Amino acid sequence: MTMTTMTTMTTPTTIKNNPDKILLGHGSGGKLSHDLIDNLFTKYFNNPILNQQSDSAVIPMSSNHIAYTTDSFVVDPIFFPGGNIGNLAVAGTVNDLAVSGAEPKYLSAGFIIEEGFSFSQLEQIVISMAVDAKKAGVTIVTGDTKVVDKGKCDKIFINTSGIGILDKKNVGISSGSAIKPGDKIIINGSIGDHGMSVMAARNELNIQTHITSDCACLNHLIADALKSSKLIKFMRDATRGGLGTVISELVKGSDYGIQIDEDKLVIHESVRGLCELLGFDPLYVANEGKVVIIVGSEDAEKVLSKIKESPLGKEASIIGSISEDHKGKAWLNTGVGGKRVIEMLSGQQLPRIC
Amino acid sequence: MTMTTMTTMTTPTTIKNNPDKILLGHGSGGKLSHDLIDNLFTKYFNNPILNQQSDSAVIPMSSNHIAYTTDSFVVDPIFFPGGNIGNLAVAGTVNDLAVSGAEPKYLSAGFIIEEGFSFSQLEQIVISMAVDAKKAGVTIVTGDTKVVDKGKCDKIFINTSGIGILDKKNVGISSGSAIKPGDKIIINGSIGDHGMSVMAARNELNIQTHITSDCACLNHLIADALKSSKLIKFMRDATRGGLGTVISELVKGSDYGIQIDEDKLVIHESVRGLCELLGFDPLYVANEGKVVIIVGSEDAEKVLSKIKESPLGKEASIIGSISEDHKGKAWLNTGVGGKRVIEMLSGQQLPRIC
Repeated sequence: MTMTTMTTMTTPTTIKNNPDKILLGHGSGGKLSHDLIDNLFTKYFNNPILNQQSDSAVIPMSSNHIAYTTDSFVVDPIFFPGGNIGNLAVAGTVNDLAVSGAEPKYLSAGFIIEEGFSFSQLEQIVISMAVDAKKAGVTIVTGDTKVVDKGKCDKIFINTSGIGILDKKNVGISSGSAIKPGDKIIINGSIGDHGMSVMAARNELNIQTHITSDCACLNHLIADALKSSKLIKFMRDATRGGLGTVISELVKGSDYGIQIDEDKLVIHESVRGLCELLGFDPLYVANEGKVVIIVGSEDAEKVLSKIKESPLGKEASIIGSISEDHKGKAWLNTGVGGKRVIEMLSGQQLPRIC
Repeated sequence: MTMTTMTTMTTPTTIKNNPDKILLGHGSGGKLSHDLIDNLFTKYFNNPILNQQSDSAVIPMSSNHIAYTTDSFVVDPIFFPGGNIGNLAVAGTVNDLAVSGAEPKYLSAGFIIEEGFSFSQLEQIVISMAVDAKKAGVTIVTGDTKVVDKGKCDKIFINTSGIGILDKKNVGISSGSAIKPGDKIIINGSIGDHGMSVMAARNELNIQTHITSDCACLNHLIADALKSSKLIKFMRDATRGGLGTVISELVKGSDYGIQIDEDKLVIHESVRGLCELLGFDPLYVANEGKVVIIVGSEDAEKVLSKIKESPLGKEASIIGSISEDHKGKAWLNTGVGGKRVIEMLSGQQLPRIC
C-alpha cells in the first residue's frame, strides 16, 4: 500500500475526530494544506495578489527604492492583554519599515505551528493580523505554513517579512548620520507596557495587573511626523531591549553624547510597580508601539504637537537631547539630580517577549 | 538590583563556560545579539545592504514588477546527505522566485534557535547559506534571530523570504493559463531524492543508503530555459508533496488532462528501494532541486537540450504531455500498460522534510 492511499483512508477520520486541531497534514502541501489556505488564510487576508496562490506574489512596483525587513515572533504567552502574537507580527514589521522612512505596503506571513494547536486560536490570530494589516494599509501577499510534531515547537511561531516603498528623500533617514548637538529626542508615550503586560500574563507569576501592551502599527503617526518637518534625523522603534538599547546603540562610537531626563519619561504606575517587584529596569523593557525620533531643535515642538494629534501619541514628550559632552556615552539625568550611564544590555532581560 | 546590572555580572561567566552554546541572550537585542550579528551573520553574509544594520534593508529597485515569497524550514534532521537546513532555506526561496519567472535578487533570513544549540553547527549552516546564495547570485540583506528556551523548539528553524525582479514578459508565466493539449512536460531529473535522503538520515531508522538530497538553486537553469523558448507556459518546483502534487494541483479544475509516462520518470534505485521498504510512493516524495516545466511541443526538445547542458539537468526528460481527454484528471501510464490516477495527497506523507 502506498502512503497516498493510506492517507486517503485515514485522514478524514482524524479530521472528524479533531475538528479544532491542527494536524501534521495541514503542513504537508497536500489537500489539508489547501483547505487551510482556502478556509483561513485567503478568507481573512483576502486580496488579489495573495489570491494568485502562486509560488511568489507578483507585485507592481513604481518606486526606485524599497525597504525590506524580517522578524520572527515567539512571544509567550501568545495571547496577552492588549494583543496576541498576530498583532505583534504585523506591528513589528510595519514599524520596522516605517522607521526606515518607508511606506509599508506588503507583508509575508510564515507560520510554524505545533501539531494539535487549536484551529480557533489560529483563526483568532489570523483575524487580528488581517484587522491590523487593514488599519495600517498593508497587504499580506504571500505566506507559508509548516506544522511540526507535538512538543517540537511551543504552540505557534510567526515570521513576517515586509516591503515598503521608500521616497528618495527618505533614503538613509534612520541612519542618524545628520544628528548634531542640540537635537531633541522625542518618544510617543509611556515605556515598558508591552514587556510588563506579557510578564504579567505568564501564568506561573499569578499576578493581577491592569497593564495593557502598547502593541500598535505606528506607520500613520510616523508618516505624519515626517510630513511635519524636514529636520527628522533618526527614528527607531524601541522593541526588544527597550528605550535604553535604542539610545545606547545610537550613541556607541558617535561624536556626541545623549542625555535623557528621567522626569520626562512616562512610566505607568502599574508598570513601575511590577518592574520594582520583579527587579526589571523599565528603560530596558520591550515596547511594541513606541518610536524614538530625533529632530532638529527648531522643529521639536512642531513634531511633538503633530505626534500628540495621533491617538498613539497622546503621551508623547521630549525626553532628552544630543549633547556635545561625553561623546559616545548616554546617560540618564535622574530625578534626584544624579547621572546614571545608560549601557547596552548584556544578555537577555526578558526572553520571548516578542 | 536591576536586571541590567545582574546580567552584566552573570553573562560573561556563562559565555566563558559555554563558548559553543547559543544562549537566550543571543536573542535579546542586546550586546550578545550584536556580537552574534557581527561575528557570524555579517561576517559570512557580508554585503553593503546588510551591513547598514538598520531596521529595514534599503534596496534600489529598477524593475516595474517584483516577485515576493516566504518559506519556513523545519527539516529534521538539520544535517542530511547532500545538504543542511541552511542550503534548503536558500534553495527553497530562490526556486520559488525562479519558477515565477523572476530573477532572484534579495533574501531575508529569520532564525529561531533553541537555547543551547551549538554555535559551530549554526556557523556551518550560515556558511552553507552564504555559499549557496553567492552561487545563485542572491544577497541576504536583512535578518532576525530569536532564541527560545531549551525544549521550546527543535534545534533550529529558518524562515527565508525573497524578492526577485520580474521582467514584464514573464509576469504570469507560472500561472499555466496558456497551457493547451499537446504541450510537453519536462522535469530536470530524478524524483524523490531529497525526501528519502532525509528519511534515511533519521537516526531511529538506522538505514545505510547512498541517497543524496538533490537540494540546489535552480535559478540559472531556469533562466537559461526561459531564454531558449518563448513557449514555456508553466514552471513549478516539486517540493513538499512531490511531482504528484504539482501535477494534481495544476490539473484540478482545468479543461485538459495530464498524462505522465512512468517509464520516463527517473527514480534512482536506492530511492526506489527505500520507498518500497517504507511504503512511500516516490511520486509524492519531496524534491528540493527539481522543476516541472510545461512547454509548447514545438520547443520541447530545444528546452530539454538546454536544460541538459546544466549540471543540475543531466537526467532531464520529457515525462508526459497535456491531453484533451479526461479533463481535470491526471494519470500515470504505468510500465505494464495500465493507468493510475494521480490524486492530490491528503494529509502528510513525510513530516518535516523541508
